[in-house]
Amino acid sequence: MFYHVKELQYRAKPERPDPVYAKKLQEILGGQFGEISVAMQYLFQGWNTSRGLEKYRDLLMDMGTEELAHIEMLSTMIARLLDKAPVKDQEHAAKNPVMEAIMGGMNPQHAIVSGLGAMPADSVGNRWTADYIIASGNLLADFRANLNAESQGRLQAVRLYEMTDDRGVKDMLSWLIARDTAHQNQWMAAIAELEAQEGRVVPNTFPRELQKQEVAYAFMNLSAGEESSAGRWASGKSMDSMGVFQYVQQPVPFAKKPTIPPAPPSLHNTPPMLR
Amino acid sequence: MFYHVKELQYRAKPERPDPVYAKKLQEILGGQFGEISVAMQYLFQGWNTSRGLEKYRDLLMDMGTEELAHIEMLSTMIARLLDKAPVKDQEHAAKNPVMEAIMGGMNPQHAIVSGLGAMPADSVGNRWTADYIIASGNLLADFRANLNAESQGRLQAVRLYEMTDDRGVKDMLSWLIARDTAHQNQWMAAIAELEAQEGRVVPNTFPRELQKQEVAYAFMNLSAGEESSAGRWASGKSMDSMGVFQYVQQPVPFAKKPTIPPAPPSLHNTPPMLR
Amino acid sequence: MFYHVKELQYRAKPERPDPVYAKKLQEILGGQFGEISVAMQYLFQGWNTSRGLEKYRDLLMDMGTEELAHIEMLSTMIARLLDKAPVKDQEHAAKNPVMEAIMGGMNPQHAIVSGLGAMPADSVGNRWTADYIIASGNLLADFRANLNAESQGRLQAVRLYEMTDDRGVKDMLSWLIARDTAHQNQWMAAIAELEAQEGRVVPNTFPRELQKQEVAYAFMNLSAGEESSAGRWASGKSMDSMGVFQYVQQPVPFAKKPTIPPAPPSLHNTPPMLR
Amino acid sequence: MFYHVKELQYRAKPERPDPVYAKKLQEILGGQFGEISVAMQYLFQGWNTSRGLEKYRDLLMDMGTEELAHIEMLSTMIARLLDKAPVKDQEHAAKNPVMEAIMGGMNPQHAIVSGLGAMPADSVGNRWTADYIIASGNLLADFRANLNAESQGRLQAVRLYEMTDDRGVKDMLSWLIARDTAHQNQWMAAIAELEAQEGRVVPNTFPRELQKQEVAYAFMNLSAGEESSAGRWASGKSMDSMGVFQYVQQPVPFAKKPTIPPAPPSLHNTPPMLR
Amino acid sequence: MFYHVKELQYRAKPERPDPVYAKKLQEILGGQFGEISVAMQYLFQGWNTSRGLEKYRDLLMDMGTEELAHIEMLSTMIARLLDKAPVKDQEHAAKNPVMEAIMGGMNPQHAIVSGLGAMPADSVGNRWTADYIIASGNLLADFRANLNAESQGRLQAVRLYEMTDDRGVKDMLSWLIARDTAHQNQWMAAIAELEAQEGRVVPNTFPRELQKQEVAYAFMNLSAGEESSAGRWASGKSMDSMGVFQYVQQPVPFAKKPTIPPAPPSLHNTPPMLR
Amino acid sequence: MFYHVKELQYRAKPERPDPVYAKKLQEILGGQFGEISVAMQYLFQGWNTSRGLEKYRDLLMDMGTEELAHIEMLSTMIARLLDKAPVKDQEHAAKNPVMEAIMGGMNPQHAIVSGLGAMPADSVGNRWTADYIIASGNLLADFRANLNAESQGRLQAVRLYEMTDDRGVKDMLSWLIARDTAHQNQWMAAIAELEAQEGRVVPNTFPRELQKQEVAYAFMNLSAGEESSAGRWASGKSMDSMGVFQYVQQPVPFAKKPTIPPAPPSLHNTPPMLR
Repeated sequence: MFYHVKELQYRAKPERPDPVYAKKLQEILGGQFGEISVAMQYLFQGWNTSRGLEKYRDLLMDMGTEELAHIEMLSTMIARLLDKAPVKDQEHAAKNPVMEAIMGGMNPQHAIVSGLGAMPADSVGNRWTADYIIASGNLLADFRANLNAESQGRLQAVRLYEMTDDRGVKDMLSWLIARDTAHQNQWMAAIAELEAQEGRVVPNTFPRELQKQEVAYAFMNLSAGEESSAGRWASGKSMDSMGVFQYVQQPVPFAKKPTIPPAPPSLHNTPPMLR
Repeated sequence: MFYHVKELQYRAKPERPDPVYAKKLQEILGGQFGEISVAMQYLFQGWNTSRGLEKYRDLLMDMGTEELAHIEMLSTMIARLLDKAPVKDQEHAAKNPVMEAIMGGMNPQHAIVSGLGAMPADSVGNRWTADYIIASGNLLADFRANLNAESQGRLQAVRLYEMTDDRGVKDMLSWLIARDTAHQNQWMAAIAELEAQEGRVVPNTFPRELQKQEVAYAFMNLSAGEESSAGRWASGKSMDSMGVFQYVQQPVPFAKKPTIPPAPPSLHNTPPMLR
Repeated sequence: MFYHVKELQYRAKPERPDPVYAKKLQEILGGQFGEISVAMQYLFQGWNTSRGLEKYRDLLMDMGTEELAHIEMLSTMIARLLDKAPVKDQEHAAKNPVMEAIMGGMNPQHAIVSGLGAMPADSVGNRWTADYIIASGNLLADFRANLNAESQGRLQAVRLYEMTDDRGVKDMLSWLIARDTAHQNQWMAAIAELEAQEGRVVPNTFPRELQKQEVAYAFMNLSAGEESSAGRWASGKSMDSMGVFQYVQQPVPFAKKPTIPPAPPSLHNTPPMLR
Repeated sequence: MFYHVKELQYRAKPERPDPVYAKKLQEILGGQFGEISVAMQYLFQGWNTSRGLEKYRDLLMDMGTEELAHIEMLSTMIARLLDKAPVKDQEHAAKNPVMEAIMGGMNPQHAIVSGLGAMPADSVGNRWTADYIIASGNLLADFRANLNAESQGRLQAVRLYEMTDDRGVKDMLSWLIARDTAHQNQWMAAIAELEAQEGRVVPNTFPRELQKQEVAYAFMNLSAGEESSAGRWASGKSMDSMGVFQYVQQPVPFAKKPTIPPAPPSLHNTPPMLR
Repeated sequence: MFYHVKELQYRAKPERPDPVYAKKLQEILGGQFGEISVAMQYLFQGWNTSRGLEKYRDLLMDMGTEELAHIEMLSTMIARLLDKAPVKDQEHAAKNPVMEAIMGGMNPQHAIVSGLGAMPADSVGNRWTADYIIASGNLLADFRANLNAESQGRLQAVRLYEMTDDRGVKDMLSWLIARDTAHQNQWMAAIAELEAQEGRVVPNTFPRELQKQEVAYAFMNLSAGEESSAGRWASGKSMDSMGVFQYVQQPVPFAKKPTIPPAPPSLHNTPPMLR
Repeated sequence: MFYHVKELQYRAKPERPDPVYAKKLQEILGGQFGEISVAMQYLFQGWNTSRGLEKYRDLLMDMGTEELAHIEMLSTMIARLLDKAPVKDQEHAAKNPVMEAIMGGMNPQHAIVSGLGAMPADSVGNRWTADYIIASGNLLADFRANLNAESQGRLQAVRLYEMTDDRGVKDMLSWLIARDTAHQNQWMAAIAELEAQEGRVVPNTFPRELQKQEVAYAFMNLSAGEESSAGRWASGKSMDSMGVFQYVQQPVPFAKKPTIPPAPPSLHNTPPMLR
């Protein structure tokens, strides 16, 4: 169960309105790696974590609850950036280059659909979708998803930091960027803990002998040229310490040409005897 | 540019048809972490990798090209599992419990839409979407996405392995599971290489002093109860070696209640003076 | 069964082309509350209305059929607004600020995909989806959906009216806005009729004693601060006349901490005994 | 900013596992009118509410925060219903009709993707999308959307109540159904308050004389047959008290056949002079 | 502008309810090639057809209007097939194998969401999307899309015809299948007319000398094995009579390895100088 | 199984960067008829083609493999067009009209999300979806889909050719346009071959007498006005040579008004006896 206080976790106040930037900032609110994604991802992972794993469950609920506060901060910032956006008469704007530039660069839905409010959408207007998130029941797998989300999220926040010189916006982003630093570190710590217990390959509980061991550490050089042989992944002990990397210079097929059986006549596929 | 040979990378032949299982197997062909996702993700990352990073580009193209072969193997397997599926007369099936069970458990689109062929969709019929993939231009971020994809993918393949006793299916899955082991190891190796050069926080090129340092290693205990204080993420040196984890037991807001400025009258929002 | 006449229900002729505005106008053609949505929503509700409810079915078919005419008017208007859009040489446009402004503000798909025709999409290019509509079989619920659709639709049309000074566009919008006035009134009338017969809570046929009566009129103050206690919803007789509103100042949980049972080993979730 | 406590708002404990029902229950978690939809809808509306409207903002934050607790209750219930789901060997299940029925009726993603956890998806597996929600800046419009959401939501919860005889599930649903009763009443109260101040047509701030008044209260009989003339919407004073309903028995077009201007040659549309 | 009559274009009455088949039949109502797709596709093409092309515009409006009647027939049929569907108590159904089979095979949304009405969705529950349709402004291109739609649509209707022995359903399908025959023939006729005037390659108005002529009739043998050399497409005069097919046995790249320039530092991509 | 070489099939090098055009060019990479669509469509059709149809399978694999090379060319071109895009400080750009125009016309995700790389999305940012493709098992139907895809694809490429005067871009497009010419011709040839064997109506294997023959060649004049009677489709021998086109001037319904049976009370639809 949740409680809300009206104060923001951190301030979200731009120096001045900037509706073009508001459109861009939507990316880290409602985009693939925006705050809605991490909030929903951590909460669903938390709710699905079973007994015996309480500290991970608590970790997930702590972070998911924080991300709700970040959604709130970004929604507030976007609404404020949209203040005084020129939304009325196209005609007059066209005569004023600054107005025109702003109107051209705004997301029209910020005027027509949301009335200058933030939207659950990305910087080009794609609505947020749960296709973006994952909660698998395997925490090591999921924490890797989380580390990726915080990495992509911080990268996008940093890019947006560089795209403005509004000190208010930069101030808020410096908070979110710091929290992404914390979260990357925290997921790395949680991953290290799980890997120490379970081993590094997900899932670790599947009997190794049931996989086709002869290719479990092989690298297939399927793009002509061998630049890839220079990497750590191409030779030496494998990262899970259970094998040795091999570089297969000229990978060949292990199987024959397949044939597909014809469908029954009632499906009216093209019949196989056709000549 | 690509070339195709008709032989499969590895055999994809079930012992017997099983249209109910074919539906499930769609998950690792066309689902969020299916083979289409990894193929497209690695190829787009590769094409977007700039000069000076040739070995990573080659790595990505090698792996992306292999994943195309895995799409092919799964498509072949699914088409063969659909062989002899009962697709004709509902009425007669209903009298035969086995037939009926099969028809009830099949994906109806395997008959109506694809004519017993594989589909670019997941195990409940959601079509594949590029919402699933990521290529950011930052390789450390993206390799973390790749490690996650191989982790989730192997987890799903292992679950599917447990759901059948068809030796042909298990044989093919033992190949894919082994390749996922290799790929997890290889992405871990590539990540280790990049982290050694760049540092562990993505992106490493953003000046640390520009982030709000005081919260860059703090853990916010926002879900009542302190089970989360027991983890590695709650105390000690941070994983990037640049800070020390702090556990904030009672996090409070840093900012005041926000207010949102009213929109101009031309948007016909609810007016603010309303009493 | 339907018949079409080529005349428009009302004229849809702009004074002059305006491809930037054409992009915006797409919102009320193919957006969440555009004319495609109301047409499809009313028609599906009508087709699903069962016998004994003929006057509602006829109402729905009357209105759904009218909305098809509105799709037609908007498609026509958009195609005309796109007339003479500068679609050829980027280079030359860049030298002419007006041309450039137009090209920058146009939807590029209006040139590349539809050849200056209207599209079944919103003002940022999201394709129309049946996710937008509802037909539940319960007419009181659905008429509330319809009242909402006409409210949002009129709001958006009014906003678009304010964004142009083309008298032809305004003329057409003044028609659509009036029809939305009529439709809002008509759905309110239909709702009043059904509420008078059925009661105001949807569905009215569920035995009241089967719901947890003690919280059926309570308001939970879960966001700190009690501004919400000042509303009609916080005290007095409930709107269905069956209860009295109560304001719960400090809502507490009614249940204990949940625990989730561990999944079977064959799913390879993180095992619960992990320490 | 939000805080979480681990206790549930109300208990969510089934008498026994039922993975087939778990699939169905997903509808009111992650479907069009599930708890994710109302939580996100109310929170976005709240964050976008401007100053001078504090009591409505608080109302929205109170309710949105409660809906987060309902997401949590449903996620918990679904995970518990999935306990002991038969997820292993297809073959053995096929020999046991009960097992087989369960496996056939389960959502396969509950095993393959979420490891027996709840998913942000509906009862057929469509992922939740922000296409479902609305926050327009006009509170009367949005409260109508909210009343609809609570009406559709309660209807679906009641239908699900009828589809089980598990007393634990019914107990939790009796809570949610009661809360939907409360919320329907509360939105009706808030709507009544706003209508009393603003008038009943959304938006009320648009000058009435700018709409095409002659059709602002007309009903168009576009589906043959006049059953619809029997309704309250067809005659008498309009619901906004500003007009009188008229029933137009034989509606005719008000405009001429439109023609669309040909596109410029550079678009390579079919040329108009074609004979 | 449209008018509706309540009579169906053709009868849509099953011999008996069959909710499992109702789910399947959704495919040709709301699937990729269902009746919603053809209706919307033809209407949008029609509305976008410019002056000088009146007979094609009329053709499109005639057919689009007919498809609206087919949506209506299928909606009616599906609602009738859902009659008497067992939607109540899961428990009791489980004891009755027939009931259980039906409940397992039904689309749960037919009960929970639509109240036994038809839905704008396909046979696995994916909602209809305008991603399915096309209206490009080039009629020859679009009529090819239409011929494809009628081909896929008839194929799916025929498959569904084979999956039932309900004489009422078969009767209705025999109508739709016949209409698809007519429409395939009619689009072929329209295509022949346009090809006779314009030539066969779309668009015909682009100067041939501006394309890379040396590969405009070449076939690239990029999948090992030369089975494809046996087809009409591999040798002889081209279908547009403007060239001669050539079979390139061993296609080679025409260009060098590309390199991608590094992004500016402000994007924080992986830097190119990394070693 | 696939192999990759690093050389491009054809060069993809612009004369100069142009981030606004890069956004537009995304349409033929990741749009409905972009190269991802044809690659995936042909490959899935190929993998699903059954034995006895080897030359068609090879044809599909040859072409699908070529389209992978086109994805690569377009990704490369887009990344190069994005070179030197102004992505940093909004403020400074606003003072420079050229910079500002570029920033306004760019896709913001090219900076924030992909780091100046190509994306699997169309020209307005909609992500690619497998909703765009088809593989039915009936080759005549599918080859018609393919002919349409190459027609729409060439049309879009030609429009994009007209929208730039960059000689490098035009050079690459002249290659793709030529390949689309080849592919249109090749699909026409394959269609001719199949029609010669099977007949022209898809599917040809369904007994003609089972369709409602009396309307199998009729044209329904459902849009007032008889312009459509002037076409080849309205009279004369049908294209399949099996019938004669008839023009039905005043089509009437063949069936009565339908009624829908009421749903059972447990669904809580509006009850039918309501007066």
